[in-house]
Amino acid sequence: MRTAKQADAARVHVRSTPDGEPAYVEAQVDREDANGVWWRASVPVVNAELNYRFLLSGKGRRTWLNGRGLSSGDVTDAADFRISTCDPPPAWAEGSVLYEIFPDRFARSAAHPVTSLPDWAVPAEWDEPVAFGTPNGTRQVYGGTLWGVAEKLDYLRDLGIDALWLTPFFPARSNHRYDASSFDVVDPLLGGDAALKELTAQAHRRGMRVIGDITLNHTGDAHPWFRRAQADASSAEAGFYYFEADRTRYASFYGVPSMPKLNHGSQELRRRLYEGPDSVVARYLTEFGLDGWRVDVAQSAGRYGAADRNLEMARAVRKTLREVAPESWLVAEHQFDASGTLRGDGWHGTMAYAGFTRPVLSWLGGEDTPELWGTPGQPPVYGGAEMAAVMREFAAAIPWRSFTHNMTLLDSHDMPRFRSLVGSGRQRLGVALLLTMPGIPMVFAGDEVGVQGALHNEDGRRAFPWDESVWDQDTYALYRSLIALRRAHPALRTGGLRWLHAAADVVVFERAVRGETVVVQVSRAAHEPLVAPFAASSLLDGPDLVPGAAMPSDGPAFHVWRVENS
Amino acid sequence: MRTAKQADAARVHVRSTPDGEPAYVEAQVDREDANGVWWRASVPVVNAELNYRFLLSGKGRRTWLNGRGLSSGDVTDAADFRISTCDPPPAWAEGSVLYEIFPDRFARSAAHPVTSLPDWAVPAEWDEPVAFGTPNGTRQVYGGTLWGVAEKLDYLRDLGIDALWLTPFFPARSNHRYDASSFDVVDPLLGGDAALKELTAQAHRRGMRVIGDITLNHTGDAHPWFRRAQADASSAEAGFYYFEADRTRYASFYGVPSMPKLNHGSQELRRRLYEGPDSVVARYLTEFGLDGWRVDVAQSAGRYGAADRNLEMARAVRKTLREVAPESWLVAEHQFDASGTLRGDGWHGTMAYAGFTRPVLSWLGGEDTPELWGTPGQPPVYGGAEMAAVMREFAAAIPWRSFTHNMTLLDSHDMPRFRSLVGSGRQRLGVALLLTMPGIPMVFAGDEVGVQGALHNEDGRRAFPWDESVWDQDTYALYRSLIALRRAHPALRTGGLRWLHAAADVVVFERAVRGETVVVQVSRAAHEPLVAPFAASSLLDGPDLVPGAAMPSDGPAFHVWRVENS
Repeated sequence: MRTAKQADAARVHVRSTPDGEPAYVEAQVDREDANGVWWRASVPVVNAELNYRFLLSGKGRRTWLNGRGLSSGDVTDAADFRISTCDPPPAWAEGSVLYEIFPDRFARSAAHPVTSLPDWAVPAEWDEPVAFGTPNGTRQVYGGTLWGVAEKLDYLRDLGIDALWLTPFFPARSNHRYDASSFDVVDPLLGGDAALKELTAQAHRRGMRVIGDITLNHTGDAHPWFRRAQADASSAEAGFYYFEADRTRYASFYGVPSMPKLNHGSQELRRRLYEGPDSVVARYLTEFGLDGWRVDVAQSAGRYGAADRNLEMARAVRKTLREVAPESWLVAEHQFDASGTLRGDGWHGTMAYAGFTRPVLSWLGGEDTPELWGTPGQPPVYGGAEMAAVMREFAAAIPWRSFTHNMTLLDSHDMPRFRSLVGSGRQRLGVALLLTMPGIPMVFAGDEVGVQGALHNEDGRRAFPWDESVWDQDTYALYRSLIALRRAHPALRTGGLRWLHAAADVVVFERAVRGETVVVQVSRAAHEPLVAPFAASSLLDGPDLVPGAAMPSDGPAFHVWRVENS
Repeated sequence: MRTAKQADAARVHVRSTPDGEPAYVEAQVDREDANGVWWRASVPVVNAELNYRFLLSGKGRRTWLNGRGLSSGDVTDAADFRISTCDPPPAWAEGSVLYEIFPDRFARSAAHPVTSLPDWAVPAEWDEPVAFGTPNGTRQVYGGTLWGVAEKLDYLRDLGIDALWLTPFFPARSNHRYDASSFDVVDPLLGGDAALKELTAQAHRRGMRVIGDITLNHTGDAHPWFRRAQADASSAEAGFYYFEADRTRYASFYGVPSMPKLNHGSQELRRRLYEGPDSVVARYLTEFGLDGWRVDVAQSAGRYGAADRNLEMARAVRKTLREVAPESWLVAEHQFDASGTLRGDGWHGTMAYAGFTRPVLSWLGGEDTPELWGTPGQPPVYGGAEMAAVMREFAAAIPWRSFTHNMTLLDSHDMPRFRSLVGSGRQRLGVALLLTMPGIPMVFAGDEVGVQGALHNEDGRRAFPWDESVWDQDTYALYRSLIALRRAHPALRTGGLRWLHAAADVVVFERAVRGETVVVQVSRAAHEPLVAPFAASSLLDGPDLVPGAAMPSDGPAFHVWRVENS
């Protein structure tokens, strides 16, 4: 732990709770330098998870330091820092920059043209508008394939991308494919098994990874499991779903009958989907070269009424990964408070909608930003302090390792484009936050060249414009330079996070590892100047700093510095 | 939910998370009265536990209301209000006043004198000082028995007591008996099985209840289970404990060899101790008439290294109670954050050291109050606002039903006497808080007549002074009148809690049920007067209030009013 040089902490203890009983270890001063006093303590890890917090004492008072900050009064253990003894996430994940591809919309392959369409599909030209909000919105097929993705890997590598997340590639009856009709093969419409194998092989050749996307919450109603379940009440598959007594009604995703909800109480379902080396989850890692999974709708999968197998499911999936492909990354979709499934040995991380996307949007969005998560009323407009407080609230509820393995994002195929929500000027600020904060930043294909889409989730799923003349070159250059900056600086990739200042129109935070301290300032608008407490050299265009100098006060703007002697 | 009459909440919604997905129900105005606007909503309970919070919207902003209060930024679910669908605690528990008896120290029986002592015991005269902090501290036997307790039931009924908690009555090798050498019989030194049966029968005749005290964390090393475990590595009992490889060392409570720690991984141990109708936990309810259990050291029982069976253990004990004696109350000792074991179907409540005892002591204790829970440094002196904030922090982490079924206490046999810590004047304020706040208030035998004991836990375990000439009659009258007040007012027994004001030297809170609102003011010292916003009649000596009148500003003092037209 670090205190300011003049801090009044005469003593520092670490409190943990081995076997449920509080225990204290006194910390010693490890070193003092220009940045403060470093305290060090060795704490035995007795249980599967170590939760701990700091106690600062001095001058007749006691102060707790936990994930929510400083408290003079006693606190519960909820915001304790946490260290898990479970096997760690794969080393490649932290520090990576991820890229989301909705396969139908990213790239066609001239070498492997789509020659026939399934019955549900409506062909679309590459530059045709998305028929969002109409039945055709999920039926338009633009003809992107996994062959096409493989052909664009050099573009992605040049952008600085480390890993791809492919939204589902299983056969289905929609262009989003979250209604799988089979887990046995890769959709022939996307190029089939051969295309996926070629894509992962080509990616690996470039040092890139590819993760898939699987829905454990439901299948499509065209899935043979569901067909058999409907036809034969005595089949094993009948136990895969939640049929009502009359067997015509059944539980489904948001009440949509085409996506019947899965019952994880069925051992046979678990075996087929994610338990053991023959499961769907295992096979695409071992036979197709996938490097992990993004799990769809993880907030409700495995939960139905009195049954809650959500955490059990997460652990079982993780166990399979550990056994068949331990270098896989496992990230779950979660739009809200995911802390319940980020303890122990479940997901490595979740999508950080609640802890990143929403607070950023509330700081950078305007008063007319639409509500995207079903909360009644108009979303609030935060000041920077509120954004930072919400980020801290959600970060404090999970282990640091989960926080750094969350997928951070400005948008996805499930929401309007961030640029369309906040405008191109403020998009730049969001990109700066995305690429300088902890987490595994994800770029939704097209964001980097200025693709729009404001009116409906589907509106953002526009086909990638390979005609560079329509790109926003400034935005492209921004992404490319910030990704390069992140790759070049360990502090940005893996460093700690400390908020230095947060006011209505400006936030300043520090990312630090031993040997490097980077400071980031993001200004929403012009503001009163802050005084630099350190010497720092600019890492992007902008002024160097000396102690006592005024920091830039213009806005919208952002700045990144490397602190001298750090 | 109630808002102030002029509140700017144009709309109110209730947010819950059925099957993990947020859902909102809009509340309607149910009625408006002089105290504000009441909002009502019906929310389906889909899962085993319903967690919910309120969303207030109006005038362009959104505000969350959860157990921690109001937030303008998004919050996690941690402080959501919670409703459990598990079977409720027994109806008799809420509203009861509990009395702790350390059997050796409460009352001798002339009709059933103690005639012989075990080898470890050192006989003591009734008025002999406790040999605290010496080996004799746990060996002195004063000769109180369960026969003696039965003879004093009319004293207790007259004081207003509803239920007794007896610290362990099992044979052991100490006067505290937390080192049981048998669970088969009641210690003959305390009168044996016959005395316990007579005590519970006599109590029930008076409408009173009796709960026992069991240690699930460890036994004594004289227990036949442990003797056999030591002697025979192949015995079932060898699996009841945690022996190291050499079989001479073993895990024990705080490293004290006379209290070897139990391994709940043993099914046979669980069966003998608490699973099923033949278990120890069941037998004393069904055969001896006990009305529940206090479980010792519940914060660490069932936890050892990688194994954490703590919650599983709590659920198994609760299940046995439900099956054999569903009108039993189950409360666990917990000195810290108990929220992890107060979800669902484990303990009904825990001892509220962290959520009540410690914050009260930090408000009413002085700068020289000793640290009692092993935290390094000197305990803080809180203002009233800090006390209230800490109480709210711990209450927000658990369901309301657990909060109201926690055992609230100023002290116990495990700490110095509260009176000795804060002085007789401030003791009165603590008693006022104890008997007007939510929870099941517990009086440690002797507190009500002014027994002292400051220097060591054992120092407070003084024999009850039945010579009334040495009683502090003012303190006795205070306990008696406040217990009577609690019994007379449903708002104090079962009402909600709302903090109206909390400053350094004064706290004001409301307890309310439909039809009755009671307001309590506790002043640590004289302070600036507050203005009454309501008309209220005094329930103790003190002024009635009219709107706009100054509330009393003297101190130390406390006042209790019934709000007019409530």
